[in-house]
Parts: sequence; C-alpha cells; structure tokens
Amino acid sequence: MSSIETLQQSFESFFNHRHFPTVPPSLYDPLEEFLSNSGKRIRPVLCLMGNELFGDIHQDAYHLAAAVELFHNFTLVHDDIMDKAPLRRGKATVHAVHGESTALLGGDVMMVVAYDYLNKIESPQLKKVIHLFNKTAKEVCEGQQLDMDFEKISDVKLDEYIHMIQLKTSVLLAASLQLGSIIGGASDHNQGHIYEFGRNLGIAFQIQDDYLDAFGDPEKFGKQVGGDIQSNKKTFLLIHALETTQGNDLTELNHLLTSSPADKVDRVLSIYRKCGIDAWANTLKETYLEKAYHHLNEIAVSAVRKDPLKALAQYLIKRDK
Amino acid sequence: MSSIETLQQSFESFFNHRHFPTVPPSLYDPLEEFLSNSGKRIRPVLCLMGNELFGDIHQDAYHLAAAVELFHNFTLVHDDIMDKAPLRRGKATVHAVHGESTALLGGDVMMVVAYDYLNKIESPQLKKVIHLFNKTAKEVCEGQQLDMDFEKISDVKLDEYIHMIQLKTSVLLAASLQLGSIIGGASDHNQGHIYEFGRNLGIAFQIQDDYLDAFGDPEKFGKQVGGDIQSNKKTFLLIHALETTQGNDLTELNHLLTSSPADKVDRVLSIYRKCGIDAWANTLKETYLEKAYHHLNEIAVSAVRKDPLKALAQYLIKRDK
Repeated sequence: MSSIETLQQSFESFFNHRHFPTVPPSLYDPLEEFLSNSGKRIRPVLCLMGNELFGDIHQDAYHLAAAVELFHNFTLVHDDIMDKAPLRRGKATVHAVHGESTALLGGDVMMVVAYDYLNKIESPQLKKVIHLFNKTAKEVCEGQQLDMDFEKISDVKLDEYIHMIQLKTSVLLAASLQLGSIIGGASDHNQGHIYEFGRNLGIAFQIQDDYLDAFGDPEKFGKQVGGDIQSNKKTFLLIHALETTQGNDLTELNHLLTSSPADKVDRVLSIYRKCGIDAWANTLKETYLEKAYHHLNEIAVSAVRKDPLKALAQYLIKRDK
Repeated sequence: MSSIETLQQSFESFFNHRHFPTVPPSLYDPLEEFLSNSGKRIRPVLCLMGNELFGDIHQDAYHLAAAVELFHNFTLVHDDIMDKAPLRRGKATVHAVHGESTALLGGDVMMVVAYDYLNKIESPQLKKVIHLFNKTAKEVCEGQQLDMDFEKISDVKLDEYIHMIQLKTSVLLAASLQLGSIIGGASDHNQGHIYEFGRNLGIAFQIQDDYLDAFGDPEKFGKQVGGDIQSNKKTFLLIHALETTQGNDLTELNHLLTSSPADKVDRVLSIYRKCGIDAWANTLKETYLEKAYHHLNEIAVSAVRKDPLKALAQYLIKRDK
C-alpha cells in the first residue's frame, strides 16, 4: 500500500505536463499557469487510494485522477469569478489577471479536457465512471448555487447548511474514492461504504475548517483568522450561534452582521464562546468522523489495506487542537 | 429519407421534456426556460441526417442530437455573458434575468447534462463519438477566444477571420453531421467528406449571414439590419472593405469605426458598395458552397439518399436574394 506522499508524487509525475494546445495562447496559457500552481492534489490521491484499496493501481486510475483534478480546478476558476475573489493559493486569480471572459471560457475548456481524460479509461466500467462523475459534477454546481442563494437569506438552518456544504465539497471527495474503487474492481457494497467514508470525512473537514477560521492559530492555519467573521460568511459556527443564542447576545450578533466595527472579530468570538461553540463544533466533527470510520470498517478488505485511508483521515482531521 | 421538418418534429418530441432536476429551482428553472425557447434545432437535425444518410436512425442518434443541442445552448448562455448581450431569440438572456453567476453555473451544468446524453449512447463507437465531440467543443471555445482577441486588433486578415469563424460556428455543424454518420456506420472516407460538407456549408452560411446583416430585407431577415455596422463587428464585409478600400474611403471607414454618427450605417454601406462587396461576397459564398457540394458528391452512397442534405443546404443558403 502506498503512502499519501508516494501517491502525491506519483500523480504529480503523471500530471505535470502540458494539458492544453499552445494556440491560442490567450486561452490556454492562463490555464497551464493555474494548474502548475498546484494545491495538495487531495482528490487525485483519493482516486488512487480508492483503486489501491481493492487492487494494484491501474493506468485508468491516473486518467481518472487527472479528470477529477481538472474538474476541481474548473470549479475553482469559475467559483472565483462568481465570488469576485482576487486571490487563490496566494496568487492572483485567472479572472483578475486575464479578465472574466477568458476565465469563463478557460474553465469551460478545462472541463472538456477533464472528459478527454475520462475518455482514455479502458475499463468496461467506463459508463458507470462517467455516470458518477456527472452526478457529482451536477451536485457540486447545485451546492455552489445553494451557497449563493443562502447569502441572500438570513435564517439558514443547520441541516440546510450541511446539505449545501456536502454538495459543494464532500461529494467530490466521496466520488473520488468511489470512482477509484470502481477501477479497482470493488463490489457495490464496498463502493457504497467508501463513498460514505469520504462524504462524512468531508463534512468533518469542513466543520474543522470553519472552526479554525475562527479559533485557529494564525501561524499554523496559513490564512487570516476571522476572515469568515469579517465577511459575514455563513459557517457551521455562525448558523449554530444564530440558532442557539438569545436575548442581548442575539441582538448583538445580528447587529454585528450588518456592521463592521474594528473589534468585530473579537466580539463575535466572545458570543461564540458564550454559547459553547467550541465543544459543540468538536462534538459535531467527531460525530461525522466516527460515521466515516464506521463505513471504513464496513469495507470488506483486510484491515492493513485501509491504513492509507486512516492516515489520510488523520492528515485531514487533527484531533489534538 | 426524412425531410427537415420531419426530423425537426421527431427531435422535438424526443427533446421536449424536463432535462434537469427540480431542485434547486434557482439553478435549473432558468435553463428549462431557455431550452424551451427553441431555435431551429439545426444541429440535432444534422445529427439525425448524418445517421440516416448511411442507415436507419438509431436511438443513439437522438441521444447524440440532444447532447449537441445542449452543448450549443451552453455556448449561447456563456457567450451571452461574455458579450453582455441583453437579448437572445427575442427574449431577455439568462444572465440578464437571473444574474451572471447563475448563468455561468447554469451553462456549466448544461454541459454536464450534455455528457449525460452522450453516456446513454450504446454504440461501440462511443469513444470515437466523445473524442470528436470534445475536439469540437475545444475548437468552439478557441473560436470564441479568437473572436474576443480580434476585437482588440484593428488589422485582422481575411484568412484569420475565416479560421476564427470556422472554429466558432462551422466545426459544430460539421461535427454534428460526422457524429451522426458514426452512429450510422459510415466509413472513415465518408465521415471525412460529410464533415467537409458541413464545414464549408457553415462558412457559406456565415458569409450570407454577414451579408444579410448589411444588405438584407429587414422584414425577411428578422433582425435589425446594420447591427454589425453599428457595433463595429468584424465581419467578412468589414474585413474585406478594410483590405481593399484606399484613400479617402479608407480614411472615412476608419473614422466611422471610431464614431457613431446618425447616418453611420448608410455611410458604411456606401463604401461597401463602392468596393463591389456585393459581388465579392456572393462569389466567396458560392466558392464555399461549391466546395460543400463537391464533398457531398464524394460520399459513396446513392444520390437519392443525399436529397435531405441538399434540401438542408438550400434551406440554409438562399441563392436568389
């Protein structure tokens, strides 16, 4: 079984080449540049792990992993347009440098090239792969739309938020694992459990991400703490606080959501602490993590084969903060 | 062999149902509405004709035709964002009504559903179908990018313009025919000729479209005559006029391109007439039409089977205006 680092390197050497034609450079060069400023390649690693859990990694899994990575990057380029984001991974976004039209069109063509990679898969399961890939792609779009819809609504409920965040982020992690497992020859039973492992792990990760944005150590977290609070972003924490605080605290929280005093972050954090959000978030995260491990246990392969997925869960979810 | 009208009706009864989930309605309802405001369904008809030229129409051809129609509509939704177009087919564009983000995301999900239809194709040629579909999709994006690049350049050459317009419009017509012919079991030789028939016919159609925008009868043409001139759009006519006029006429034309006097359309048309653009455009259109017919003749099937394609060429290209 391969470690996360081995799979990251293995994918990188497969993926690290030009993916697009050279002409017209005005369309394709921004995309090459964006892809080379890589993230952690979590989703392609999940594809490879999903395969290796059930058998030796097949060349198909690399094509699949590349398709998933291109799809993920396509969503980032388009999301950045919608969010009017100036920065991504510390660099100016595609639309900020090259204009919205090129970013829009570039995202489109990146999506087409994702399907080029899928079309290289030789497995007789190709139709099933494309079906799950498409189902997931639609869900990710639905999640983004719900996220935008929620920006205009003040009383988003926790279960609605969980549904949205699951579509926006967890299903692609889950599908990456299941798609890899299809290449690896997993049974339907095992495919179902590996998907649910990924889906629950993704929700736990998002809870942690929201938590760290408010309470994390700025040096370890790597981005500005309190950014979500500053921008009134709906998060697990804000939604829980709006559902549970009462009286003066609720009045104060609602006031802070429509204003930006200099001490906004501190005042919101103070309300969060008063309603015990720290313990609540940790418990919720653990609940999803336990669900994830339950499904991992249910997968009918020897325990030792599951070690890389356990390591991945530990890599993504820190339990000792 | 089926007539254009029969194939249009046949496709319509296949296609005229809900294509997207109902939730979230904020994402999917605008797309259903856009698709129901149908165009002439030329591209799906070409898919069906491409199939029927070589054999009975297979169910696969309907799935293919739906994929091509969804892809075409996806490009329209995204192009309208890029062009900031307020109207499409006489109605407000998706982004004008629902905002740019929903139009962007809606286009994305329409593209995914196009691949859902491709994935329903049962033919063993599916990989070849997806390969040609993807190649064409990339070319259409390249054409749109070149079109935007050309807006910023004053000296676009005729061959560069033809290359761009071919990518932006002709290759999808050509590919629709070839994709249908793959389902129909055409040989590589015949596939090559049907593609070239469509490609050349598409260029002839675009020359005619540019011509009619300047010289057409407003009642027959169905849109404002002179619109391209008003917006300084690069067309076959403008590029030829810039390449061939000299002296005062060229000075006047360049002046008109940077100003908008009330009589702009009349003054540009006067220059067009002086450089004999009418005869030139007609000759160029006929040249491409002849090329198209040459390739149609080369297809190795009995002449009578080609009648619907000849009727389609006559339907698209009027020779008696």
